[in-house]
Amino acid sequence: VKLRDLRTPCLAVDARTLDHNLAAMARALPGARLRPHAKAAKCTALARRQAALGHRAFCGATARELEGLAAAGLGEDLLLANETLDASRLGRLDARITVAVDSLETIEAAVAGGVREVLIDVNVGLPRCGCALEQAGRLADLARGRGLSVRGVMGYEGHAVGLPERAARKRACDAAMALLAAAHAQVGGEVISAGGTGTFDLNGLATEIQAGSYALMDTAYAKLGLPFRPALWVEATVISTSAGFAVCDAGLKSLGMDHGNPGIEGARVWFCSDEHTTFAPDPESAAPLGARIGDRVRVWPAHVDPTVAYHETLHLVDGEDVVESWAVDLRGW
Amino acid sequence: VKLRDLRTPCLAVDARTLDHNLAAMARALPGARLRPHAKAAKCTALARRQAALGHRAFCGATARELEGLAAAGLGEDLLLANETLDASRLGRLDARITVAVDSLETIEAAVAGGVREVLIDVNVGLPRCGCALEQAGRLADLARGRGLSVRGVMGYEGHAVGLPERAARKRACDAAMALLAAAHAQVGGEVISAGGTGTFDLNGLATEIQAGSYALMDTAYAKLGLPFRPALWVEATVISTSAGFAVCDAGLKSLGMDHGNPGIEGARVWFCSDEHTTFAPDPESAAPLGARIGDRVRVWPAHVDPTVAYHETLHLVDGEDVVESWAVDLRGW
Repeated sequence: VKLRDLRTPCLAVDARTLDHNLAAMARALPGARLRPHAKAAKCTALARRQAALGHRAFCGATARELEGLAAAGLGEDLLLANETLDASRLGRLDARITVAVDSLETIEAAVAGGVREVLIDVNVGLPRCGCALEQAGRLADLARGRGLSVRGVMGYEGHAVGLPERAARKRACDAAMALLAAAHAQVGGEVISAGGTGTFDLNGLATEIQAGSYALMDTAYAKLGLPFRPALWVEATVISTSAGFAVCDAGLKSLGMDHGNPGIEGARVWFCSDEHTTFAPDPESAAPLGARIGDRVRVWPAHVDPTVAYHETLHLVDGEDVVESWAVDLRGW
Repeated sequence: VKLRDLRTPCLAVDARTLDHNLAAMARALPGARLRPHAKAAKCTALARRQAALGHRAFCGATARELEGLAAAGLGEDLLLANETLDASRLGRLDARITVAVDSLETIEAAVAGGVREVLIDVNVGLPRCGCALEQAGRLADLARGRGLSVRGVMGYEGHAVGLPERAARKRACDAAMALLAAAHAQVGGEVISAGGTGTFDLNGLATEIQAGSYALMDTAYAKLGLPFRPALWVEATVISTSAGFAVCDAGLKSLGMDHGNPGIEGARVWFCSDEHTTFAPDPESAAPLGARIGDRVRVWPAHVDPTVAYHETLHLVDGEDVVESWAVDLRGW
């Protein structure tokens, strides 16, 4: 099958760039130093590639992601890096399951659901989940008192991972990890789980880095000067042209939009509609796009995670050849 | 089944509000005066409700939407209100199919695909698809010369439908429709297809209005003072609370984000992550939200179309009861 034969819009991944990204990360964070996050690609075929490179512990943000990883034989050490009040689906899995807890309620949910291992999730500066530092020790005691094994702490420096300047990113990460170190001193355990693609080589505390975006990347992360390159685009067809602009058939229902408009090389994107992106040649580009009806264009998403979640299939391509087609099989909840 | 029993996040629709919206539109635009747009809800069960109210002609933005409508027995008069270069899937359907064309290439694609009827799509001010006014007559002649039946014109005033002030919306709609009337004078045919939820009662030219959002609505359209009320929300569970804010389990992968953050009654939404929304009680609200872990919250999307496209199922609820569960069966392309 050729890329040209695929119906548009569809997700395409450059196979060599993916290999490069996976290898670069495996060199930097070998084996258990990386706990790949399944939420970015929602694809067990990609997780198998990561496992083949030595990363055998995974994390996910939803029960569905962990169920799918377990069913795919990747259940050696799965972490729900998120809070849940219904752990029963996880407790039933034939896999080693750990869940993040940040409250009495989530501890009780883990117990009720038959989950046996937890991490104490600590707020390290991102206003999202995670307990206050001063509660970490108390929650660990509570969890142990309820018969749970407390493996350690988790704390996601999500407010740091996207900062464009490396030095600022490092400072924000360090400040966050100082909090997590203090929490770990209260909690104990061998695991300090943190980090993301933007801080993978800046986080000096975590025993394991939770990174997912590095494999496919997006235009937001591409601005950070990381050693990973954008591998994923939405393949689209130009369906209409007018004086000064053109329109392709990828839009709001094939692109995550929270980080803004996608990019098209040699063009300026004007706006996206449900099934369209309107763009114009960029006169400042070295190679302004000369789009004609029927041309294929590559639309590069600003945020990979919510982009992938719209699609059923991810096509791995090498030049013009589609070498594999992977199901995006971890979608939903 | 009770709403409380559904796993979160999930799509919920208030059955009575939906009935109100469908009935209000059927009164304003009875029968063929409305051509419901399937792209908003991507759900044949909802389309059946619209057909039962007398609207038997539908439009869609993708081949998949038309295939699904035809398979559901709703193929009396289906319009692809969009350009395509591969009409072969449409030509094969056991349904009356019309496609929008705006170029020689899309006309040839209709012919090659076995489609027999077209509308000439005219740019009426929104820089997206549609030919220039001065090309409309030439394209109609070309289409007729290739054996196609030209039913008339289409022109979407998408730059008008969202204008907050009714008077400004009317002016923009009138200006757009003056262009479409001029195109229609060149093209002929009995159909003038245009409009949307925001101009459903302002568009004095169109023989049929293409509206879809009116059935479910969203927070963006709710600001326009239309007689339709928001019916669709994402049901979510509070999974974490901290001093000053709380977090629920609906995020970027269950909400279309191109119109901005969703709304939560009695709260201010701070930001969304992949599977989370962080919010705080709104002190200026009459009933500031006091969210506790385990509470359900209703997250109202800013844009309904790309929200629905993330979900497999849409649950119709009446108070605490789930009265029906509808497959979002027109997703994909």
